[in-house]
Formats: sequence, structure tokens, C-alpha cells
Amino acid sequence: MPQYAKSLTDAHRAFLTDLFPGDGCVLDAEPLSAFSTDASRNRSMPWAVVRPECREQVAELLRWADLERMPIYPRARATGQVGNTVPLLHGVTVSLLRMNRIIDIDERDFAAEVEPGVITSDFQAACAGKRLFYPPDPASVKISTMGGNISTCAGGLRAVKYGVTRDWVLGVEAVLPGGRILRMGGRAHKDVVGLDLKRLFVGADGKLGLISRAVVKLIPLPETSSSVLVGFADLAGAMDGAMAVFGAGLLPCACEFMDATTIKAVRLGGDIPLAPAARAALLFKFDGTREGVAAEVRRLEDALRPVAPVSVEVGEGEAEEAVWAARRDISPGSYRLRPDKLSEDLAVPRGRVPELVDIAQEAGRAAGLPVLCYGHLGDGNIHTNIMHDASRPEEVRAAHQVKERLFRAAVELGGTISGEHGTGLTKASFVPEQLGPDQLQLMESVRRVFDPHEIMNPGKGW
Amino acid sequence: MPQYAKSLTDAHRAFLTDLFPGDGCVLDAEPLSAFSTDASRNRSMPWAVVRPECREQVAELLRWADLERMPIYPRARATGQVGNTVPLLHGVTVSLLRMNRIIDIDERDFAAEVEPGVITSDFQAACAGKRLFYPPDPASVKISTMGGNISTCAGGLRAVKYGVTRDWVLGVEAVLPGGRILRMGGRAHKDVVGLDLKRLFVGADGKLGLISRAVVKLIPLPETSSSVLVGFADLAGAMDGAMAVFGAGLLPCACEFMDATTIKAVRLGGDIPLAPAARAALLFKFDGTREGVAAEVRRLEDALRPVAPVSVEVGEGEAEEAVWAARRDISPGSYRLRPDKLSEDLAVPRGRVPELVDIAQEAGRAAGLPVLCYGHLGDGNIHTNIMHDASRPEEVRAAHQVKERLFRAAVELGGTISGEHGTGLTKASFVPEQLGPDQLQLMESVRRVFDPHEIMNPGKGW
Repeated sequence: MPQYAKSLTDAHRAFLTDLFPGDGCVLDAEPLSAFSTDASRNRSMPWAVVRPECREQVAELLRWADLERMPIYPRARATGQVGNTVPLLHGVTVSLLRMNRIIDIDERDFAAEVEPGVITSDFQAACAGKRLFYPPDPASVKISTMGGNISTCAGGLRAVKYGVTRDWVLGVEAVLPGGRILRMGGRAHKDVVGLDLKRLFVGADGKLGLISRAVVKLIPLPETSSSVLVGFADLAGAMDGAMAVFGAGLLPCACEFMDATTIKAVRLGGDIPLAPAARAALLFKFDGTREGVAAEVRRLEDALRPVAPVSVEVGEGEAEEAVWAARRDISPGSYRLRPDKLSEDLAVPRGRVPELVDIAQEAGRAAGLPVLCYGHLGDGNIHTNIMHDASRPEEVRAAHQVKERLFRAAVELGGTISGEHGTGLTKASFVPEQLGPDQLQLMESVRRVFDPHEIMNPGKGW
Repeated sequence: MPQYAKSLTDAHRAFLTDLFPGDGCVLDAEPLSAFSTDASRNRSMPWAVVRPECREQVAELLRWADLERMPIYPRARATGQVGNTVPLLHGVTVSLLRMNRIIDIDERDFAAEVEPGVITSDFQAACAGKRLFYPPDPASVKISTMGGNISTCAGGLRAVKYGVTRDWVLGVEAVLPGGRILRMGGRAHKDVVGLDLKRLFVGADGKLGLISRAVVKLIPLPETSSSVLVGFADLAGAMDGAMAVFGAGLLPCACEFMDATTIKAVRLGGDIPLAPAARAALLFKFDGTREGVAAEVRRLEDALRPVAPVSVEVGEGEAEEAVWAARRDISPGSYRLRPDKLSEDLAVPRGRVPELVDIAQEAGRAAGLPVLCYGHLGDGNIHTNIMHDASRPEEVRAAHQVKERLFRAAVELGGTISGEHGTGLTKASFVPEQLGPDQLQLMESVRRVFDPHEIMNPGKGW
């Protein structure tokens, strides 16, 4: 590990308060503690928090930090599940929430330029006002930022049709350690000149530099959408149902899955539009023209008939939200089974999902813990909530054993320990098992090209 | 520039003929000359050509080549326009055409694994046999390979809806200089563990290593498609037409453009379904369910009405091919205006296309040369054919002046000198103008992580 600054000296403090006057720099313990954690609930205190308002301040900061070997932790809304924004080695946390302008949304270019602190759903609403569409939709979309989404390559429900954040990024402006400002890519939808460095920044978890602006691609806003919640007697039926729908040539914009434990947890909260006999469920969403969506829903009903689902509930227009209520209730509903959870986001080749769910359910039974399997079946990205009671040490131990079993299973099934959340602190120890020493060594070497003194988000992931 | 092997010694020859017995190694001048060039018509003789049949041979070759500082030039069908497969520093050309197996096409995973030498349209046909769809469709799709498409990040007509090759690559197996075999990614549709090295190989033009296998994502095969050829009185009308269609919430899978010079060249070959008054044309294609596509065509006709096109020709079912005949005739039809061409593939932000076309037409007029502008308006990727007579030195000079003018214009308009073809030999000298010294230096450093002695495709691009 490189040598880092061992503390924040008076000279450091003077530099920071000079560069970030007023409340642009936070040095007092009490306000700092709010920046010590994120949705992972891991915790480590930063020595300082700064709030840049422009890239020039960021450049000056990273010039200084590189000289001083000061760990730099980028942060926006801190909605990440794996501790990516936790300042493990203290240092300086950079809150990007004041760089939150939408520079433009261009309906001729079908492109938009944003600063990192823009809330993603605010940006999507602004696009919709021009009948344009930015598809990536992580569950945190209403509270997380474009910069955070790009740094983590956020996925979401619509990935099955529209791909993930990486597929929508056309350009990245980043500030590198040492203070260079680098503009990569731009507004051209196609560009094959040189290595694709801009997309290397997508999902790099802030380890190559600090994203100060991004250009993303847009498409026309679909006219309408409809959703269908389908109940099945068992897991195998649900998998056959998904195959039947895709086999009929349909590409839904979402294809979500719930297993029996998930359905049970949601039912405890009230009625859902799913037959009592349902032990597995699929939730499809289609978007496009009115006629096209109506046709897709009809095709779906035809395709499902041979699979004999136990219930089919179509939600169109204002009724669409009703069929999504069950899906939205999963996260809060989990706590009806146990007070605490380990929430993972494994992804496997889609055909291996049944095996993964079987392993999860079996591991849960063996441990005496409820394990909810649900999420993005369409891209094999299955969320598992391992429920337990954190006040009981044996349940905590058992929950972590289930997590390890699932991580190993995901890799053995040809998948990944993280489809969406990243690795950060909570999954870091499992990364070598998935990537192996050669890939890890190459990633480290590539990272050092951008950040030779490893000041960017040190101590995380890989 | 690094020190390279100065010739092929007897020991080198013995190594190669031992590793690649029989016709697996080519050393004679006459058969070698077939490997000296590609679609760019640039030319340089390799010292040897080898034809590996498995990755283990490739690994052994790259172990040796790294020690011997032997330039390595990967090659498949050599359809590239910019000289990427031309062995500039001689060395050894590696033909990947014998590594041409489709390992599997999995209708549960919606993923397929291929060797690099598979012809892309053969692969697509095999997918279609399982009602699956691999969307990327460069113009060369019937003769180019999956490995070549991935190495160049091939684009194509359908990019406006489906993106480019990069967006479909889930996993890459590559052999690195020194002989390490690296498997990156896999069949999971989402994966955010570590840096996205696999997609760094996409579009790297064979400069990081040699791709020995790839896993790509598939989607359900759309049920049907329809196309519409629309004539406009002028360029501005065509641009308004495109805006009207996208503004109506329609996302065609192709949105092609032809300018007046292109239409003229095509008309010289025979009748096309376009009104005589048309001085610009758009060609749209929609795919999906029958009802959805029919609805999109109706919306398109409605959306275009206020723009008053001079003709609208809908091609459905078997008639679809007829409206595409004009588009397919552009490349051969260009030669009706002059015997030679410089064919470029600039891309600009979509809203800047009219400026680019104006500049191209003006530059052509000033030089006394016909310049055809056509191609993928949907993603701002405009092909320009600068027609001239290569037997007349002043026309060659003038053509190159037009090319330089257009390259500069593309960069000034916020675009790129290559949306699809890459930079190779023919555009190498323009790369610094677009990327600048910082990006170039970073790309070089990243490349050296994979290829410290720069044996992979040296002398190209960036």
C-alpha cells in the first residue's frame, strides 16, 4: 500500500478552507460524522469534507491531493450498498452535490450534458419535458445522482431492453489526480478513435479520477407502457413462463421475478393482485406505441397459455401502478420476516437462475433464515435478501455463511458477485475469487496510469 | 519506437513451421502478397502468415513474439477501410479464419460464444434459427467476422436503436503478448466487478492482445420489419423530417440519409422509388410485432405530413427490399460519377449534420469533385465519398484537401473523424487533432500495461 498523509495538518486545513470558503469546507467532527457512512452502514470518519462548485476547484484539489498523498473519497447521495463512499483511510471526502447543473438537453442531438450532482430522476423528468428518455433506472433513481450512477455503472429494471448506464454514456469529463482535466468522447453517438477510455470511467467507482461532467445519449420518450403480473404454481413454471415470453419474440423493458419467500413477505403487508396459489411470480413491462404495447400484451397472454399460470393481472394506464405495488413493497416488506438483512445482487447467466434460486432457498433453510430471491430475471440479476436478527450473533454468523455460499455459487455458475452494486468494502474480499490474479494485476496497472499514487477511493473493491 | 526484430531468421522460421505445420504457416512471397493489403488498398508485406486453429497456438505464438520483439498483425477477412490489418512493420500476420467455431447459442442465457473467425451474418443466421437476434450490422456483415467486428467496434445501420458492437459484448477471452490467456466477463448480462477491461478490448484494433473468443448478448428476433423511403425537396426538409419522426416518439431501427449528389449517382443506375423532385431522402426501418410496426409506420406518415415530403414509399413484406435497393446501390453507384473514391465515416452530434453536409458539398464544389453524403443520420454518422480520378494527380490532391477539410470540420463540430472504420493507417495523422496529447499519452500507457513491447499491430492509429 502506498504512503498516505497521516493526518490533516494546519497547512492542509488552510489550503482547504482557502479553496473552499464558507460552508464549502467542513472540518468539525459533528457535521463530518454525517459523511462517515453510506447505505452500507460501514463507517469511517473523513478528516474533511469539501463541496466544490466547479471543475476548476476539483482540479486544484486533486493537484494538491496528489502532492500530499491525501486520500480522496468522491461522494454524492451515498445511496451505494457496498461502502464505496466510506472514507476508509480518512482523507478528504468530496461532496459533488453542488455541481448539480443540467448543462443542456438537446432534442436535435439526442444528447444531454450534466454535472455529477444532478439527481437522476430530476434529469429524467427534464428530459421527459422535451419528450426525451434516459432509460437507466436503478432502484435509487429518485435519490441518487448521475455522477454516482456513472461511477458505479448503475443498472436497474429496464436493463433487459435498454442496457445499463455504460450503454448511455457518450462523453466523460474527468479530473485526474495531479489536476489534469480530461474530456473524453462527446456528443457523437458513434466514435471509434482510440481506446474507449470514457467508458472505462463508467463503473470505475471513482478510482481513476473524479467525473466532473458527462454527456449521455437520449432516445424518444415511449408513448405508453403496460405491465402484467403473472403468478405461477412454482419456480419451474415461472422460468418456463419467461422462456415462453422471450421465445414469442417479445422484448419487455422489465422482466422481474419474485420467489415464494418474497411473495410471502409482501402478502404479510396486504392484498396483492396475485392468486393465492402463486409460489412464484413474474412482472413484465412493455413500452412503445399504444398499438405496439397492446399487441405485445396480447402476445404475452397467448405465449403464457401453454405454461398455465395461476393468475394474469394486466395493468394498463392508471392501473399499471397497482401491479407494481407488490414489487415496490419487497424492500420494506422483507423486514416483516426479520429485522435485519444482508442485501446482495448476484448475476448469473439467465438460464442458471433456477439453480441460483434453489441454492439460495436451500442455504436459507439450512441456516434457518428466510432468504428472499427477486429482481431482474430478464438479465439474470437476482437480488437476495438474507433476513436475520442482528441482535443474535448466531443469526449474523449464519447470514454471512449464506452470503458466502451464494457468492461462491454465483461464480461457479459463471456469474458475478455483483450485477449492480459494485464491490466497495462489503464484497472486496470476494473479488479475487471472481477475477483471479491476472485480471486484478492488469486492473491495478491500468488504475496506476490514471492515479499513480492511488489517492482515489483507496482501500476499496479491487 | 521500440526495437523490433529486423527480419525473419531461420530460427524464427523453424519455430513458426513447427508450431503451425503444413499450410498453417505461409512463408512464400507469392501467397504472402495476398496478405499484404486490405480494403484500404495500403500495402506492406508480412514476413510470414500463420493460421492458428486454437488459442493454445496463439498463446505459444505471442509468448515467442514478445521475446523476439516480433510485430504481430491480427487479420480476419481484411474488410477494414483504414489499413488496420496491413503489416506495416512486416512481422507475422495472424489469420484467425480457422478459429471459426460457434461454440454455442444458448436460448436460455440469451448469449452466444464464438471464435473470432466466424462470419457475422453466418452467426446471425444461426441465431435466427433459434429465433434469436444479434443486432450489430456493419455494411460488411456478410463477409466480415465477429472477431474483426469486435476489434473495430463495428457499427452499422441498426445502431440508432440497438447501439454498436460494444453494447453486445459480455465477455472476451484474449491472449496477451507473453502468452497469458485472459478471460474477462462472461454470460451474466450485468457485471460491475472491477474495471471493464473486456470492453476496452472492443475497438482496440488488436493493440491490447488477440481476441480468441467472445460472448455476446442476444435478444428475441423481432417478428417483422417495414421500411419507408421518403423524398424531400431539400436538405433542410429532410432534417425537419427526421426531427418530426423522432419527435413523435418513434425509434426506428435504421434512419438513413442521402443527399442530392448521392441520389443523382443512384438514379444514373436506374429507377428508384423516389419522386423526381427529391433532393434529399430518408430511409426508415422499424422492427417489432406486426401490429407495433404497422402503428409506427402510420405514426411516421402522420408525423411527416406537416413537413410535406415530395414522396413517401412504404415497403412492407417482400416489397421492403425494393426501398432498400437505392441505399445498397450507393457504394457501387458512386463510381458512376468518378472512377475512384476516398470513403470517410465522420460522425458529429446529430443536430450538426446539416452543417457537416453543407461543408462537404461546398468543399466538393470548390474542388470540382462530386462528394456524396449519406448514411446513418440517426446517429450522426455520415459517410462521405469523395469521388475523383486517381489517374489525375490534381484530382487526387484536391480529394485529399476535401478529406482534410471534412476531418477538421467534424472535430470542430464536436464530432469524430471515425464513427465506424477506425483510424489505422489512413487516418492516423489526424488522431492527435481529435484526442489531444493528454488522452493519447494515457492511451499509450494503458496499451503498455497489456503490451509492454508494443508488438501488437504496431504503427497504427494512436
